[in-house]
Amino acid sequence: MDEARQIAVLLLTCPDRKGLVSRLSHFVYEREGNILDLDEHVDAEAGRFFIRVAWDMDGFTLGRDKLTAAITPLADEFQASWSIHFSDEVARVALLVSRQDHCLQEILWRHQLGEFAIDIPLIVSNHEDLAPLAAQHSIPFHHLPVTAQTKPAQEAKLQDLLVNARVDTVVLARYMQILSAAFVAGWQNRIINIHHSFLPAFAGSDPYRQAFQRGVKVIGATSHYVTADLDEGPIIEQEITRISHRDSVPDLKRKGRDLERLVLARALRLHTESRVIVCNGKTIVFD
Amino acid sequence: MDEARQIAVLLLTCPDRKGLVSRLSHFVYEREGNILDLDEHVDAEAGRFFIRVAWDMDGFTLGRDKLTAAITPLADEFQASWSIHFSDEVARVALLVSRQDHCLQEILWRHQLGEFAIDIPLIVSNHEDLAPLAAQHSIPFHHLPVTAQTKPAQEAKLQDLLVNARVDTVVLARYMQILSAAFVAGWQNRIINIHHSFLPAFAGSDPYRQAFQRGVKVIGATSHYVTADLDEGPIIEQEITRISHRDSVPDLKRKGRDLERLVLARALRLHTESRVIVCNGKTIVFD
Amino acid sequence: MDEARQIAVLLLTCPDRKGLVSRLSHFVYEREGNILDLDEHVDAEAGRFFIRVAWDMDGFTLGRDKLTAAITPLADEFQASWSIHFSDEVARVALLVSRQDHCLQEILWRHQLGEFAIDIPLIVSNHEDLAPLAAQHSIPFHHLPVTAQTKPAQEAKLQDLLVNARVDTVVLARYMQILSAAFVAGWQNRIINIHHSFLPAFAGSDPYRQAFQRGVKVIGATSHYVTADLDEGPIIEQEITRISHRDSVPDLKRKGRDLERLVLARALRLHTESRVIVCNGKTIVFD
Amino acid sequence: MDEARQIAVLLLTCPDRKGLVSRLSHFVYEREGNILDLDEHVDAEAGRFFIRVAWDMDGFTLGRDKLTAAITPLADEFQASWSIHFSDEVARVALLVSRQDHCLQEILWRHQLGEFAIDIPLIVSNHEDLAPLAAQHSIPFHHLPVTAQTKPAQEAKLQDLLVNARVDTVVLARYMQILSAAFVAGWQNRIINIHHSFLPAFAGSDPYRQAFQRGVKVIGATSHYVTADLDEGPIIEQEITRISHRDSVPDLKRKGRDLERLVLARALRLHTESRVIVCNGKTIVFD
Repeated sequence: MDEARQIAVLLLTCPDRKGLVSRLSHFVYEREGNILDLDEHVDAEAGRFFIRVAWDMDGFTLGRDKLTAAITPLADEFQASWSIHFSDEVARVALLVSRQDHCLQEILWRHQLGEFAIDIPLIVSNHEDLAPLAAQHSIPFHHLPVTAQTKPAQEAKLQDLLVNARVDTVVLARYMQILSAAFVAGWQNRIINIHHSFLPAFAGSDPYRQAFQRGVKVIGATSHYVTADLDEGPIIEQEITRISHRDSVPDLKRKGRDLERLVLARALRLHTESRVIVCNGKTIVFD
Repeated sequence: MDEARQIAVLLLTCPDRKGLVSRLSHFVYEREGNILDLDEHVDAEAGRFFIRVAWDMDGFTLGRDKLTAAITPLADEFQASWSIHFSDEVARVALLVSRQDHCLQEILWRHQLGEFAIDIPLIVSNHEDLAPLAAQHSIPFHHLPVTAQTKPAQEAKLQDLLVNARVDTVVLARYMQILSAAFVAGWQNRIINIHHSFLPAFAGSDPYRQAFQRGVKVIGATSHYVTADLDEGPIIEQEITRISHRDSVPDLKRKGRDLERLVLARALRLHTESRVIVCNGKTIVFD
Repeated sequence: MDEARQIAVLLLTCPDRKGLVSRLSHFVYEREGNILDLDEHVDAEAGRFFIRVAWDMDGFTLGRDKLTAAITPLADEFQASWSIHFSDEVARVALLVSRQDHCLQEILWRHQLGEFAIDIPLIVSNHEDLAPLAAQHSIPFHHLPVTAQTKPAQEAKLQDLLVNARVDTVVLARYMQILSAAFVAGWQNRIINIHHSFLPAFAGSDPYRQAFQRGVKVIGATSHYVTADLDEGPIIEQEITRISHRDSVPDLKRKGRDLERLVLARALRLHTESRVIVCNGKTIVFD
Repeated sequence: MDEARQIAVLLLTCPDRKGLVSRLSHFVYEREGNILDLDEHVDAEAGRFFIRVAWDMDGFTLGRDKLTAAITPLADEFQASWSIHFSDEVARVALLVSRQDHCLQEILWRHQLGEFAIDIPLIVSNHEDLAPLAAQHSIPFHHLPVTAQTKPAQEAKLQDLLVNARVDTVVLARYMQILSAAFVAGWQNRIINIHHSFLPAFAGSDPYRQAFQRGVKVIGATSHYVTADLDEGPIIEQEITRISHRDSVPDLKRKGRDLERLVLARALRLHTESRVIVCNGKTIVFD
């Protein structure tokens, strides 16, 4: 990707009606924007329209600061939910971890390779184990141990850390604590979790043992936005792998780690490239 | 496969101990049998041993009729569950269907190509829709309509049909009736069902709609032995396919049909080639 | 799909420039068409634009017969290659077969289920084996045996049959004859073949034996448009399956048949739903 | 795995004949070994037998140092090629790299997690880029730059390094130099390479560009033993992923990296667990 290029991405959903694509693409065209990518979807059953439009800001006649004001009347007319993103405003991502390093390693390695357009201003953990890995990548590491008693206070500290670091996306990279409903409410569709099963199968704890005991022939991993209902949030990405009776629980965990790394990385990529719209508890993913 | 060749297949499971492979393979060798395929598995956690041994009966010094008597003392010593099968005693398979033809078509077509070593002495349905398809393949078709009132009587008729046709395996090829616990008890690990979801996700009715509403990114199909607990029987085979928000419920059904056909056919093949041992509610599949 | 609904689909490719999406969607909107689906792609390296636009003709202010004339000036200005299709003008598909029935069965079965929006006015074969299957589906069957001597004459007859039946798409459903370059030239991007390997691996004859001998761990199937260069035509769809040393050549053929059926059916569906643009020897597939 | 446990693994191939499984398992049993895993395969077409037997050395009545002498007469009688491995004699693996780190990172990370039973006494590279990564893992790093002139001398140095470090397996983790036929001859079936395509498709250089230009819908990666014929060595493992016209060459490279990492790691695991027999230019993989 040409890094100097400024690209605007509009995500929008509204009740379906005639002329939506035309009027939105015309909005860009009449301001001299070149549409690089446009993807739209109509859920015919729900009568709902979804669109992602990406255009080159080079030569665009409207300043970036005036764009929101210009879109608002159109969006209001359409009764739309929408958001606008710019390619040079990279997502500020906080990584929350516990003891297992595989998801953290994966994200840091891909980040180093330039696969994500993100900054990682901090890593937070309820354990100290992964501090050296954070140090290797020169990322500030915060140790916030959690007990039943200290949880509210520690969540308040976490909130302060995130706000101070101007974080907009939180990734639970195998963070083994359940965030409170109050905390989650403040970060709607901005906390990404990796669950180590093919949801809705084997929700809850120890899914690999559940899978082993049930004798399934396929296991999976699921990345989803976190909601107050555990393991019920909108699914962003899933992947599976075949297993057999030869696989013990440790084998399932090993194979599962590979799935978790891949699925969480894909979900983070989709989210930070503004490819996901959440609507009625599920996602539209423009990939 | 050379059809004239007689192959014996032993399936056996017992508590693990030293010398099992050696003594079982020696049993075959000292009677001049040539082992064509041997696959074994030890569930270290459960301390349980599983084996499938296939050998050529050509030159075997023991008559087929004396084989069971010869194995029994060994199996008793090992406290084993076991069964023996011969390649020329093909499974007699009854197909139970309702209105949808895709699974029936698939099995009949593969049968015609010689992919299964089975006979199909009858097709039974609670509807008449698929009688012409049965006729095309010259297979007797029995119409047993079912209501709440007639169910016990019709199950008794079904039982008679199966017994009279010397059926040993029943395939529910999208048969939309629930068989009674009493009926199922008489056919343990001999009724194969296809469930149109990736179990244990979306058990119950209308799984494609459930999947659509949950917004999963992958759907599946599961073939399993039927037990009294609906959708809880030992899983024989599963397969999945990726979906996206672009897939409507009819699209999911279309994609699901392809999975169902494939998964049911694979399960039937595994079962009729004596590749499946059931133990503690799950399967060991020697494929 | 609502069968009464008339949907127009425009496929268009041209050099990339500003305003293409806007002007094309505006073309539809100003004539009161409701865009149901729009998918576009820019090949940044080649500087080329591709689009598929589907809109509801209900309420469209321009008659279908005047549409071509109305689009032409726009397309000329864009230096575009383009085509327009209507949902009620179903493709007329000829199926060419030899002796193997699996691909033919698959297409006929899906056709019967309504998965394709096509008519099948005829089946042509160089053998008589599949005449009964054609008869079962009440489709005229033509036997055109081919030898080196009779090939030109038989191709001429084939051409007449296709023209008389107003065929627009030819499917080689395991047709084991090579069509002449002259014949192929008259049906550019309208003959769909299934090759039983993952092209470009194992082009040529007996790919399953080649795969067995090379010891690959994955086999595939490829559906492509036929060009004068055998096995070099634009690829529409591919799929693969894992294999192991346990698979003999007949096993590979059996597994391969499942791939071939699936891949050819998908390719036919994509083609007949006007989802494929061919450009520079490869395809853009809007699925 | 219980690390204190000593497990012996026998890999053996010979012409097929009666009694092979029985006599080999009896060999273990009569010396009080408990067979943990036995997998065998007969290539009926080639008339060749392959077996992997793993047994617990606990209570085995024969000393490890006397095992080779005891097996030799049996193997000679069978005209077998064979090898024996012990679980506590971990493979000594040298990693050869150039500038790209993804395969190296993956192996080091999995090694750190204990996924491989290996030691890594050294990393060798023709560039200095990855020295810091080696240092992080406290593994000696040797820089051996290569030009056409220095190649023979540097290969001699490489050979010395490997011998001095008692290396038995060499992994080319995206090492961008071609080893000489003479060097390769000394390391038969002990050098593992990762090729960034689904061989035999797109052998040679820049396979992702080749794949892009051909418009394939699936890309792959292949891990194989290195032979003098480039890209023609016995294939150990392959994996693929779907792509579309939306994927540019850099996208293919990104997706390809994920395949390469996975496939090379799997191949190394299979090799170091003594699960691979090479015969007639292809592999039997007991997984």
